[in-house]
Amino acid sequence: MAKKERNTYLTNISLEEAQRLYFAEVSLLNHGRSTEKIAVTDSLNRVSAKPVFAKKSSPNYNAAAMDGIAVVANHTYGATESNPIHLKRNKDYMDINTGGYIDDPYNAVIMIEDVIEIDEDTVEIRQAATPWQHIRPIGEDIVEKELIISSNHKIRAMDIGALLAGQTIDIEVYKLPQVGIIPTGSEIVGAEQELSQGKIIETNGSMFSVMVAEYYGIPKKYEIIPDDYELLKNKILAAVEENDVVIINAGSSAGSKDYTVDVLREIGDVKIHGVAIKPGKPTILAIVKGKPVIGIPGYPVSAYLVFELFVKPLLFQYNHLILEEPRKMKCVLSRKIISSLKYEEFVRVKLGAVKDKIIATPLDRGAGVTMSLVKADGILIIPQSLEGYEAGREVEVQLLKEFGEINNTIVSIGSHDLVMDLLGDELHTRKSNLFLSSAHVGSLGGIMAMRKNECHIAPIHLMDEETGEYNKTYIKKYLNDKEYAIIKFVKRSQGLMVKKGNPLGIRSVKDLTKKDLLFVNRQRGAGTRILLDYYLNKHGISPSDILGYDREFNTHMAVAAAVAGNSADCGMGVLSAAKIMGLDFIPIAWEEYDLCISKEMLKDSKIISLIETMKSNDFIAKIQELDGYDTENIGNVIE
Amino acid sequence: MAKKERNTYLTNISLEEAQRLYFAEVSLLNHGRSTEKIAVTDSLNRVSAKPVFAKKSSPNYNAAAMDGIAVVANHTYGATESNPIHLKRNKDYMDINTGGYIDDPYNAVIMIEDVIEIDEDTVEIRQAATPWQHIRPIGEDIVEKELIISSNHKIRAMDIGALLAGQTIDIEVYKLPQVGIIPTGSEIVGAEQELSQGKIIETNGSMFSVMVAEYYGIPKKYEIIPDDYELLKNKILAAVEENDVVIINAGSSAGSKDYTVDVLREIGDVKIHGVAIKPGKPTILAIVKGKPVIGIPGYPVSAYLVFELFVKPLLFQYNHLILEEPRKMKCVLSRKIISSLKYEEFVRVKLGAVKDKIIATPLDRGAGVTMSLVKADGILIIPQSLEGYEAGREVEVQLLKEFGEINNTIVSIGSHDLVMDLLGDELHTRKSNLFLSSAHVGSLGGIMAMRKNECHIAPIHLMDEETGEYNKTYIKKYLNDKEYAIIKFVKRSQGLMVKKGNPLGIRSVKDLTKKDLLFVNRQRGAGTRILLDYYLNKHGISPSDILGYDREFNTHMAVAAAVAGNSADCGMGVLSAAKIMGLDFIPIAWEEYDLCISKEMLKDSKIISLIETMKSNDFIAKIQELDGYDTENIGNVIE
Repeated sequence: MAKKERNTYLTNISLEEAQRLYFAEVSLLNHGRSTEKIAVTDSLNRVSAKPVFAKKSSPNYNAAAMDGIAVVANHTYGATESNPIHLKRNKDYMDINTGGYIDDPYNAVIMIEDVIEIDEDTVEIRQAATPWQHIRPIGEDIVEKELIISSNHKIRAMDIGALLAGQTIDIEVYKLPQVGIIPTGSEIVGAEQELSQGKIIETNGSMFSVMVAEYYGIPKKYEIIPDDYELLKNKILAAVEENDVVIINAGSSAGSKDYTVDVLREIGDVKIHGVAIKPGKPTILAIVKGKPVIGIPGYPVSAYLVFELFVKPLLFQYNHLILEEPRKMKCVLSRKIISSLKYEEFVRVKLGAVKDKIIATPLDRGAGVTMSLVKADGILIIPQSLEGYEAGREVEVQLLKEFGEINNTIVSIGSHDLVMDLLGDELHTRKSNLFLSSAHVGSLGGIMAMRKNECHIAPIHLMDEETGEYNKTYIKKYLNDKEYAIIKFVKRSQGLMVKKGNPLGIRSVKDLTKKDLLFVNRQRGAGTRILLDYYLNKHGISPSDILGYDREFNTHMAVAAAVAGNSADCGMGVLSAAKIMGLDFIPIAWEEYDLCISKEMLKDSKIISLIETMKSNDFIAKIQELDGYDTENIGNVIE
Repeated sequence: MAKKERNTYLTNISLEEAQRLYFAEVSLLNHGRSTEKIAVTDSLNRVSAKPVFAKKSSPNYNAAAMDGIAVVANHTYGATESNPIHLKRNKDYMDINTGGYIDDPYNAVIMIEDVIEIDEDTVEIRQAATPWQHIRPIGEDIVEKELIISSNHKIRAMDIGALLAGQTIDIEVYKLPQVGIIPTGSEIVGAEQELSQGKIIETNGSMFSVMVAEYYGIPKKYEIIPDDYELLKNKILAAVEENDVVIINAGSSAGSKDYTVDVLREIGDVKIHGVAIKPGKPTILAIVKGKPVIGIPGYPVSAYLVFELFVKPLLFQYNHLILEEPRKMKCVLSRKIISSLKYEEFVRVKLGAVKDKIIATPLDRGAGVTMSLVKADGILIIPQSLEGYEAGREVEVQLLKEFGEINNTIVSIGSHDLVMDLLGDELHTRKSNLFLSSAHVGSLGGIMAMRKNECHIAPIHLMDEETGEYNKTYIKKYLNDKEYAIIKFVKRSQGLMVKKGNPLGIRSVKDLTKKDLLFVNRQRGAGTRILLDYYLNKHGISPSDILGYDREFNTHMAVAAAVAGNSADCGMGVLSAAKIMGLDFIPIAWEEYDLCISKEMLKDSKIISLIETMKSNDFIAKIQELDGYDTENIGNVIE
């Protein structure tokens, strides 16, 4: 059924073992020992291959340590308050500034403060000078032949100053390893090209290029190689000639077009294929003609992680640098996480400092969700020996951001709206030390997060089916309403989003039961789903009569994209999302989208800045550029 | 007495106040707002000037999430274990790999594991597919118009991946600020030039260049300007035109040739001249034609510090970046430090993890000692309001190195010898995660540091005047000898170092009393000084008969440099130092230079590696290349 047999068998070796085995194999190759001479002024962050000793002393002459006059000490003997001595310029003394050259026969400096000017060429002193006072002797800073830096030292700015002071102009450093990057896949095209159906933009290769440079290597990215055994083989052979390390992305798995492992078996030695990590399992660790060659899986999160776990340590090894311990922080897990005993899992988490605890909330765990990496504040590693962690458990998280940034972040968990993105951007633009982080779990999820002290604010839009009033009822029901308040945000227009021209002629929720109409829904707990259910109930429609009611997306934009992309005919969402995606819109209701907050937090300076931002003319103008919003009460607090 | 009046008056404004005032003035200038469009692939570490929304969804088509076959879901309905269904290639199904394009009319994927191959064009399935199973819908990763990064965001590798995935090719970022660097001083010459008497190599400008680049600016270094009012004025005016920020080094003080402040007063507005910090007091903070211009003092440590305190924050402000909190660590101070109420002092310290405490030992506090910065592990800030700290006091130190490095450092305090530098280098070359840090305080100082648990090893060479035996007597006298051991290092030849050809005809210590002979001594507590005193005593010579007996240097090389540099006629030290500096040598004694260590530390893996290194053939060969050493017992432990 396919041109080649599928490689369905991967090993499941532990990460630790895979790293140990492979790095030991690579170190036997004895690479990373070649050196080059470069200018000291270009040597920042390079690593010295030999110890460097000062060529000359610094200062290399006896220098004045003060502004004043240079004198011959024994010409000053006997000077006292009651018996001052007069000295003649260019006979007994010369003017000198700090750093000035102490010429023969002078051998002491008297500070300017202790010198009384008598006339153009005469000064008076009232205290004798001792030989060598206020003189920086030769070598006070650096003595000739003194060790300035040892070998295997990563050169810093102050080292460059000292090396130059010791008159070292060139320095022998290890050569930077060059890394060949081969993107593969018939469906992959360069980012500059127009995308046709079924094509994917090459992103990992560009990401690897900057990562190689960041970790002190030289990236060399090759053109994209289609899924063709011979082409791939020839390219790898050429890349191995030209580089110190080669990485191939993707084709490392066991699909019918995943040729990488077979090519590597033919031309070299595959040490490991398959590591017990998630994401990143189908990793290939090989050696071809004495060079390490690594096959990296294609999903962006896997690609990033496998690079960090296998390529980065290799680059550090070649550069004789020690990997820094990742910065870690103790956090409290907001939700239960289940993980398999089959692998060590790397879970991206958002962090927030709420009520003296750092709360870690897991993000989307899919290997294909780049944004989970972009949004992550840290990574939680679940060891292979554990089946996960309970909610409330204290865990240690590797930080991807500065602690200060996490501490200055307003954590929002709840319903998603475009205006939240705009608000975060505007807040950070006005106050560059403040950040807004949003997790989209729907309105009810936000209320629950608030109850568990996992967030500072919860954006919600929850209608009381009996009174038609928004949000208050739910706060009363799920939270102690004496302790919580509402910050009014926007009214927004909710409705049905359909394809341009409304080909199926949808007019109201009653039309959702039409045969062949494929609907797409929001997730359980989303205010929009609750609103839909309210109208279905009102019209006596059963969810089971709607095809696609169970297909869930987490945001308005995702629903709109599904409709625009032909994988659904209709979904419910806000007008702004429909407009952006070029969809038609059948309005159903105006609803109130507000921020739930604890009264205590209203005094927090971060929240005060947030409310100022909401009320600012700039921000209101930006919302008004979108359709379907009313900002009348924006920023008002209702306790 | 000088061409211009000296500027003897500096203000003494506090650091905090100076930073607050000046940065506020600069922010009024409203610089740092200009932007440029660059390729996303070049945008690592640049800062976004606007929020970036995805241009297209990713994936931008419905894509297979598994290897297998794409099917039309309703062609599979009814399939069960007992009622398998056969499907025909290109009619009912198509082969598909992960990421493959789901073409019409297919709308589900069945995993390869659940497909049984019947013949070339036929497969059997035993379970029905539900619509959209195992398909990554359009926008699963990134939805069109979704916020990828906000404005004022420092772009990371994963952001570049996400931006490209969202089909963003160019990005608007803030322009990097360009910093003009003007080195000044008639005595300053470029590092590439041969040094003549009274000239100093330009080092700070090169250090600033790499610091500017490191802190996200573009350095533009100008030629060196001699001390000439008009030349300096014209250069500053030109630099202000061409750059966003200008820094001038040095001439910022109040010497007769320090024109900088007068020039800046003529052409601009000097906001502050003189900040209450040590080192770094004569700092000038000015604004000229709407651009910040900073005068930085010339001593290398001052230069580094003033750049960190005033230029770095400015560059971060222009780049819309937040300054990271410096990493800090609680340490115990090994010695008393006295500081003045006149300034906030920045003391460079060595750190060492000894017996579960981090010990901080102050380094040379002179602003001219570059090596104090190179050797420093951290900086201890003594507030202006304090007169210093007592020994044993817990203090907080800003780290200049990784904590891991500090933890893997063997701390040596005691006598200096070149072989210690070689040992440190050899150790780090063999074990790249180990470091040796040496402080030179003389043998007795080393014993005292050992007693106070401030070091792991103490290199000593202390002769018992009665028995002629080395080191043991002193350990017995000052330490509990049951708990301490000796690691034998080298025997070395001590003697008098004199100028080439021995012009004063010195033959023994008895000649040191010669009239006009200027001697240079080692510091109190140094083994070499104790040895000298032993011989003086033996010959009945009084120290007061020796001119220069009170002039102290801390190392053999410093003494040798003083003799070679004509600031002394004779000093005592080891043969290797005399040879290196081209001096003649009159041998006096062979002495034993050993390492004192606690028995407990002998089991430490760092020390085991150190002893292995001492005994290695490579290291012994390196010592034997020097003159005047005997390595017979090297590395042997005597308990």
